[in-house]
Amino acid sequence: MEFITTIENVRNIVNSWRKEGYTIGFVPTMGFLHEGHAALIDQARKNNDKVIVSIFVNPIQFGENEDLSTYPRDINSDKKLCESHGVDLIFAPNPEEMYQDKKAFVNIADLSDTLCGIRRPIHFKGVCTVVAKFFNITQPINAYFGEKDAQQLAIIRKMVFDLNFPVNIIGVPIVREKDGLAKSSRNTYLSSEERKAATILYKAIQLGKQTIQYGCSAKCIIDTMTDTIQTEPLAKIDYISVVDAKTMQPVQEVTAPVLVAMAIYIGPTRLIDNFSYDPK
Amino acid sequence: MEFITTIENVRNIVNSWRKEGYTIGFVPTMGFLHEGHAALIDQARKNNDKVIVSIFVNPIQFGENEDLSTYPRDINSDKKLCESHGVDLIFAPNPEEMYQDKKAFVNIADLSDTLCGIRRPIHFKGVCTVVAKFFNITQPINAYFGEKDAQQLAIIRKMVFDLNFPVNIIGVPIVREKDGLAKSSRNTYLSSEERKAATILYKAIQLGKQTIQYGCSAKCIIDTMTDTIQTEPLAKIDYISVVDAKTMQPVQEVTAPVLVAMAIYIGPTRLIDNFSYDPK
Repeated sequence: MEFITTIENVRNIVNSWRKEGYTIGFVPTMGFLHEGHAALIDQARKNNDKVIVSIFVNPIQFGENEDLSTYPRDINSDKKLCESHGVDLIFAPNPEEMYQDKKAFVNIADLSDTLCGIRRPIHFKGVCTVVAKFFNITQPINAYFGEKDAQQLAIIRKMVFDLNFPVNIIGVPIVREKDGLAKSSRNTYLSSEERKAATILYKAIQLGKQTIQYGCSAKCIIDTMTDTIQTEPLAKIDYISVVDAKTMQPVQEVTAPVLVAMAIYIGPTRLIDNFSYDPK
Repeated sequence: MEFITTIENVRNIVNSWRKEGYTIGFVPTMGFLHEGHAALIDQARKNNDKVIVSIFVNPIQFGENEDLSTYPRDINSDKKLCESHGVDLIFAPNPEEMYQDKKAFVNIADLSDTLCGIRRPIHFKGVCTVVAKFFNITQPINAYFGEKDAQQLAIIRKMVFDLNFPVNIIGVPIVREKDGLAKSSRNTYLSSEERKAATILYKAIQLGKQTIQYGCSAKCIIDTMTDTIQTEPLAKIDYISVVDAKTMQPVQEVTAPVLVAMAIYIGPTRLIDNFSYDPK
């Protein structure tokens, strides 16, 4: 397994792989890898000759009061996980390698303004810009994104469609702890009391899934999930929303594929979870 | 020579070329091709196995009161020019093929806000977005841009650097008529009287080139060129500026490479011209 920190060295390896006709699968991450990332890597390993994982805590997707400086990092553990899952190349640049006097940005209108985009107005611009850069550096055939970040996945799909990147975007289902909490690097922020309280997210997801099958309105689904979250004193709702699966715009009735998404504070830690539903 | 109107068909041909190991040179144009474009094509023909020319009057780079509807078009003449200069593939999509419910945009801060960006605030966002799309569709090694559109060239170079597109950007010198007027599709807008008046641009360029060699300040160069333009009753100055060659920001003194650029109305037609200068 190669461990590379410069764009130029990745390019050289990618060029030699492409000359040999190898297909490349790409998994972008911010490191502190867990089984959710491993599921992405395993899928990439199955479908491509070569697998590249990027490890980069992307500063331009964090707002001023967010957790850029405290975001968890453990490069040695990440290397072990990648090695054991058959990764061919880790690309782990530092911020100076990625951004020099940055002026160019990729932005997605409308889809970036709802859900997490309300609390995090610059977040998806930062995500799109770094993913565009990674696509151009690693030149993958396939790229893998977790369905936990459902809005991110929808936005990346739209970016790829609109800007014609020659990359297939593959969504990989959420990996959960035994008690249902979605795996996330940010779960490490939780105290043991908060960790127990965090199971309320999955309870709300399960109840939402049951409710939606009865043909309820968006309001009814949101109310049910809100009531569930509010039974947990440590939980504070940022949003619970039902949006069109493609446009990410709120809907009143569930007549087409939707995403039911939420962001919940457990103490100071903001966690997200979601499920998709197609009424047909 | 192939004449293709769909993205999918270009992709198929590009993929087959890449599998064979052919290098691709790309020349983006808005059609109504003249010797300026031919110079770009000839340069691409020299340096690449395959040459793709796009012909697309890009609606999203035109402002509301600009000349989108009247922009000159002559696809049969364009085909002949391409064929005679050894082009392998013309990509001539219609706007619906290029844009469906468009949400994704590429934008370049600061460099887009000066010079032509003042009069044309959405112009370079439209240019960057369409060029990003074309790069992803045609996957060239080299792409060729005229130095007449000097700000565009600087912006594309910055986009490629910042977003890591795997493309070399090659600037090709301005091609001029015998009397010095820079070749432009928009020259066809000029009446015969205006056409004569338009030679004032090159006179100002020549005088500017002489002045700058004496170590004049930016103000002195601009004043000299302004005086020259004002001798022509049909000419009206939009801007004459001296900017840093990389950042496109105005400078007071010429101590590093600069671009001296201008936009001049001749009657209702807006024409641009420029020269570069390195004091070292």
